[in-house]
Amino acid sequence: MAVYTELAAETLEAFLGTYGIGLLVSFHGIAEGVENSNFLLRTTEGDFILTLFERRVNASELPWFLGLMQHLAGRGLNCPLPVSDRTGTALRTLAGRPAAITTFLPGVSATQLDEGLCLELGKSLARLHLAGDGYGAVRPNALSPAAWAPLLESCGESADALSPGLTAEVRSALRKIEEAWPSVEALPRGQIHADLFPDNVFFQNGQVSGLIDFYFACTDFLAYDLAICLNAWCFRDEKTFEPSFAAAILQGYESVRPLTKAEKSALPLLCQGAAIRFLLTRLYDWINTPANALVTRKDPLAYLVRLRHFAGAAHV
Amino acid sequence: MAVYTELAAETLEAFLGTYGIGLLVSFHGIAEGVENSNFLLRTTEGDFILTLFERRVNASELPWFLGLMQHLAGRGLNCPLPVSDRTGTALRTLAGRPAAITTFLPGVSATQLDEGLCLELGKSLARLHLAGDGYGAVRPNALSPAAWAPLLESCGESADALSPGLTAEVRSALRKIEEAWPSVEALPRGQIHADLFPDNVFFQNGQVSGLIDFYFACTDFLAYDLAICLNAWCFRDEKTFEPSFAAAILQGYESVRPLTKAEKSALPLLCQGAAIRFLLTRLYDWINTPANALVTRKDPLAYLVRLRHFAGAAHV
Repeated sequence: MAVYTELAAETLEAFLGTYGIGLLVSFHGIAEGVENSNFLLRTTEGDFILTLFERRVNASELPWFLGLMQHLAGRGLNCPLPVSDRTGTALRTLAGRPAAITTFLPGVSATQLDEGLCLELGKSLARLHLAGDGYGAVRPNALSPAAWAPLLESCGESADALSPGLTAEVRSALRKIEEAWPSVEALPRGQIHADLFPDNVFFQNGQVSGLIDFYFACTDFLAYDLAICLNAWCFRDEKTFEPSFAAAILQGYESVRPLTKAEKSALPLLCQGAAIRFLLTRLYDWINTPANALVTRKDPLAYLVRLRHFAGAAHV
Repeated sequence: MAVYTELAAETLEAFLGTYGIGLLVSFHGIAEGVENSNFLLRTTEGDFILTLFERRVNASELPWFLGLMQHLAGRGLNCPLPVSDRTGTALRTLAGRPAAITTFLPGVSATQLDEGLCLELGKSLARLHLAGDGYGAVRPNALSPAAWAPLLESCGESADALSPGLTAEVRSALRKIEEAWPSVEALPRGQIHADLFPDNVFFQNGQVSGLIDFYFACTDFLAYDLAICLNAWCFRDEKTFEPSFAAAILQGYESVRPLTKAEKSALPLLCQGAAIRFLLTRLYDWINTPANALVTRKDPLAYLVRLRHFAGAAHV
């Protein structure tokens, strides 16, 4: 969590002058989003989020992300709506960086999960998948199975330093999952969020009031998004699988979009894949982030627990 | 700028339940205040700032600061008003830290200063000084002249490494200023902000809408607060003195609270003292902050420029 770019009020006021969203009342850099600088703006017309996209984001992909959010919000999903300036442009430049203003969403992320929240999360995920229909542009998943082996090998011996035998165990699991991975036509595909962790979901009065942070979104198996959520939402203390949470997510999801038979039978494998994906990116970040950096490093081994769980499960 | 403490929504909701300020709608860690963790809260009743006081703040002094803000806000000053819980307590504990909720102030800090803003700043500073009257508790200035020599000596040879001859120049200036410093009875005293830099002043439509960050406030010469502002607001690009800015601050100040003759004649000396004080704390932070820390180190030498300017000035 960090704000990387400082912004002068006068610069922001001039920038806002090119939009039709009122005059600046206040703005505060907010400590959200590891990758970008985010500011909470209040204008005489309402509240907005200004995002300055920092180095790690590929600027050429921003139109795809902003277009997806416009499409989803236009279909009634509670996601940030990119706001266009007076010339109709949503992707702008500010302080030398790509920049976009979106609507502000109320609500707070949950840290104490329960079946009720998981049920609502499941419904929202399915609504996101249905709403994505008709957004034709494809963004391949940059963290698909093809990316995993190179990511593991790039960690070299550091993985075993973290936990002896880790490299061999992951390499073996990875091969099995890669071989069994469904072919492109085997399962329904569409636009997926691909990072719908609890901190990217806002709740208000027990209902989902916002889905945020679409900068990992891509075109992939819809059920893979569900597998990511089963990893992210169903392990108490990052350790213990909660079958009732998983059941609630599936129930919520299927109340909006029933899964096909093929999706259901692929789910344990997709869950193992999702566990590997987060294990590997966390491992990479763990090795490449100085221990004294202000960004909190997340424990890769929490995903080894998940990988082992799903590898041993006949069904989710 | 940093948020040090993470806070779970459920923790915050339970905490808010002990206040009478509505239900939580949203909250965001804001990247303001180097010393503390600040959160912008929205409730069903309005906007508030939650501050968690981190290590560098002396917890035993918090009642004095909060009491001062309550006193000033009660007298109509646009400063954060500490909000009391249902039992009448403003200083609480949250996440193991002293914590307080205050009202939210609209407005933005200016980075492009001009005479008009300086005039308004001067008026606000004088209003603060008048509003402080009647707040009887005394907090000695921990960064008064007595603190300067030990601070300089603690920097050792690092000062000369930054700029050859710096230690000798500052030591000599410091002795002269210390010797000439007014006695306690010589000038009007009261509650001063002691850190009223442009980032602690919010403007809206050219008027001051908020004075914030009272955690250096103390009981000292009122004119010393003015000297701090003349240092903080009147040097373009941290280099060039702007006589018209200084004149505007003084004009604004005196339109609310005329200076005594003794204050006017002491002002060049007080300005040198203020320059030394910020030179020394910046020097100390420069030496003791790793160059790769996310906190921006501020250049101490910008205050050597000011010290030299005010030492050579017959009047401000």
